[in-house]
Amino acid sequence: MALGEFELIARYFSRPVARRDVLVGVGDDAALLEVPAGQALAAATDTLVEGRHFLPDAPPESVGHQALAVNLSDLAAMGAEPAWALLALSLPEPDTHWLEGFARGFHALADRAGLTLVGGDTVRGPRVVTVQVLGFVPAGLALRRDGARPGDVLYASGSLGDAAAGLQLLRDGRRADTDSSLVRRYRFAEPRLALGMALRGVASAAIDVSDGLLGDLGKLCDASGVGAILELDQLPLSRALLASFDATQAERFALGGGDDYELAFAVPRAAVSEMETSLATIGRITRIGEIVTGHGVRCQRAGQTVEPEIAGYDHFG
Amino acid sequence: MALGEFELIARYFSRPVARRDVLVGVGDDAALLEVPAGQALAAATDTLVEGRHFLPDAPPESVGHQALAVNLSDLAAMGAEPAWALLALSLPEPDTHWLEGFARGFHALADRAGLTLVGGDTVRGPRVVTVQVLGFVPAGLALRRDGARPGDVLYASGSLGDAAAGLQLLRDGRRADTDSSLVRRYRFAEPRLALGMALRGVASAAIDVSDGLLGDLGKLCDASGVGAILELDQLPLSRALLASFDATQAERFALGGGDDYELAFAVPRAAVSEMETSLATIGRITRIGEIVTGHGVRCQRAGQTVEPEIAGYDHFG
Repeated sequence: MALGEFELIARYFSRPVARRDVLVGVGDDAALLEVPAGQALAAATDTLVEGRHFLPDAPPESVGHQALAVNLSDLAAMGAEPAWALLALSLPEPDTHWLEGFARGFHALADRAGLTLVGGDTVRGPRVVTVQVLGFVPAGLALRRDGARPGDVLYASGSLGDAAAGLQLLRDGRRADTDSSLVRRYRFAEPRLALGMALRGVASAAIDVSDGLLGDLGKLCDASGVGAILELDQLPLSRALLASFDATQAERFALGGGDDYELAFAVPRAAVSEMETSLATIGRITRIGEIVTGHGVRCQRAGQTVEPEIAGYDHFG
Repeated sequence: MALGEFELIARYFSRPVARRDVLVGVGDDAALLEVPAGQALAAATDTLVEGRHFLPDAPPESVGHQALAVNLSDLAAMGAEPAWALLALSLPEPDTHWLEGFARGFHALADRAGLTLVGGDTVRGPRVVTVQVLGFVPAGLALRRDGARPGDVLYASGSLGDAAAGLQLLRDGRRADTDSSLVRRYRFAEPRLALGMALRGVASAAIDVSDGLLGDLGKLCDASGVGAILELDQLPLSRALLASFDATQAERFALGGGDDYELAFAVPRAAVSEMETSLATIGRITRIGEIVTGHGVRCQRAGQTVEPEIAGYDHFG
C-alpha cells in the first residue's frame, strides 16, 4: 500500500496534544513550546539502527518503546522531567503493521512519562530511528557527571545485566524463553525518571548505564577527575538472571551490557543515610562501591583487586 | 583505523562553546540549556539518508551543510532565531576524511547562524544524518502555516528551482558543470533566517519550500483553510537556471524541487507596501500570487488557469 508521507505521520503520530505548554505541535515547520520560568532545558538524542540496536524481527512495539526509553534514560540521569519529543523515522516502506506497533510502544511510554510528541520527520531509507527528548530541571539541581568526589558512595539502581541477558537469549534462539522476564526487560526496560528527579540536590554525580556499568562508570570518573572502587560481589543481579546464566556470565552481562536503563550515581557519605530512607519507596538502589582519588574503575572481590574481562560497549570499537 | 566512538565525537564535534546559555554541552547525558524569558522554544528535526537526500559521492562538507541547513530552514519558516543543535550520526565506519569535511560544513553554517552543537549520538550503520535544531521566537510573533487569509499577497524569497537543477546536472554526470552556481546552490543553499525573523508580526503565514513550491503552498493553504492562485510567469527563476535549462524544465524545477531553502509567505495587503520597503535590504522577494477563498493551489498564466505536471515531492509517494 502506498500511503503518502504526510498521511502516515498524521495517522500514527498526530494525537490530541496532552500538554498545555505545546503552542504548536506536529504539522508546522517547527514545534513551538513553552519552557517554564526558572527551569533549564535538558536535551538529548539517541539513534537506533536495525540489526545493531534492535533485531530485524523485533516486535515493533518494543522498538517504539526502546527508541524513547534510551532517550528518557538520559533525562533521568540529569534529574530532568520529560516534556516533549521529536521523532525522525527512516523506513524502507510505509509498513502499517510495523508503524502501528511502533507508535503503540512509543506512545505507551510517552504517556507514562507525561511526554508529548511534538514533531518529526519520516523518510524512506534503512530502518533507523532517532528520537530527541526535551525536559526541564532547575539548573542548579541537575545531575551531572562531573561532581563525584573521593569518599562518595557509589550506587546502582534496580538490577543490572537483565537486558543483555535477554538479548543473548533471543540471539541464541531460545524460543521458549522469548516471554521470559529477561527478554521482556531487554525489550521494555523502564527508564528511572522518578529516581533521577528524587536525586536532584542529593547525588553528586550520575550517569545512565547505557553502554555497560564498567564503561559508564569510567566516564563518570573521567568527567569528575576521580577513580572508583567497584565491589563485584555487590552488583545487583536479578534472580531471573542468576536462574538463566551462571554467576560469571551474569556478572559479565552486568558489567558490559547496556539497555537496562539503570542509573549509577554517587552520593556524599554525609547524605547517604537520609537518601536511603527517603528513596525507599521509589525503587531498589544498591551500594556498589565508592569514589576514590586517582582515575579509572578498580574492581574488587572480597577486598582483592580483580580484572574483569568486559569493557564498555563501543559502537565503533 | 579504529577510533573509539567517544574519541570520534570529541575530535570533530566538541568545540569551545560559543554561547553563554549552554550550561552543559557535549559530553554529559543531556545538554542543559537556558531559554530566555519571554521566548517560546522552536524545535525541528530532519533526516538525510545517503542515496536519497544526498549522493554517495557528495562532498562531505556539503552533507554537513545540508543536514543543518534543512533544519535551519524550518526555524526560518517559524521566524525563529537559532540557538542549539543536536546531531545523530549513523556511519558505516569512522572515516576521518568524511567526518572532517562533514564537521567543517556543519560548523561553518552553525557559526554563521550563531548556533552551537550541544550534543548528539554516533552509531555504526548506514549513512544517515539526523539533526535537531532549537531556537527562540516570541510566542505571539511566530510564523505559522495557518494564518493566511483571502486577499493576502503571496511571496517567495530568492530564486526557486536552482537546487533541483543543480542536482539534475550532477545526476546527468555533466562533470563540467559540477562547479556551476546551480550545483553550488544544491550543495550549499543558505536558509533564510534573517528574512524569517524580519517577517515576525508581518507575514500572516509562512512555510519553507522543502518539498517543492506547489506541494508546500498546498500545505500552507490546507493549514489556513484557504486556496491560492499562483502566477507561473512571476516565479523567481535565476539567470543561471534559465541558461542551463529551457523555460518548461526550469518551471518544473521551481514548482517541484526542494532544497533551495526559500520561504513562501503570505502578507495582508494592507501591510505589503511597508513590508516591501523594510525588507529591501534583506534580500530579494517576489510576489507570486495571492490567497483566495476555497482550497488548493490554482496555477495561472496570463490570466488563464493551467495545469502543471509537477506535484510536491513525497518521500513515500
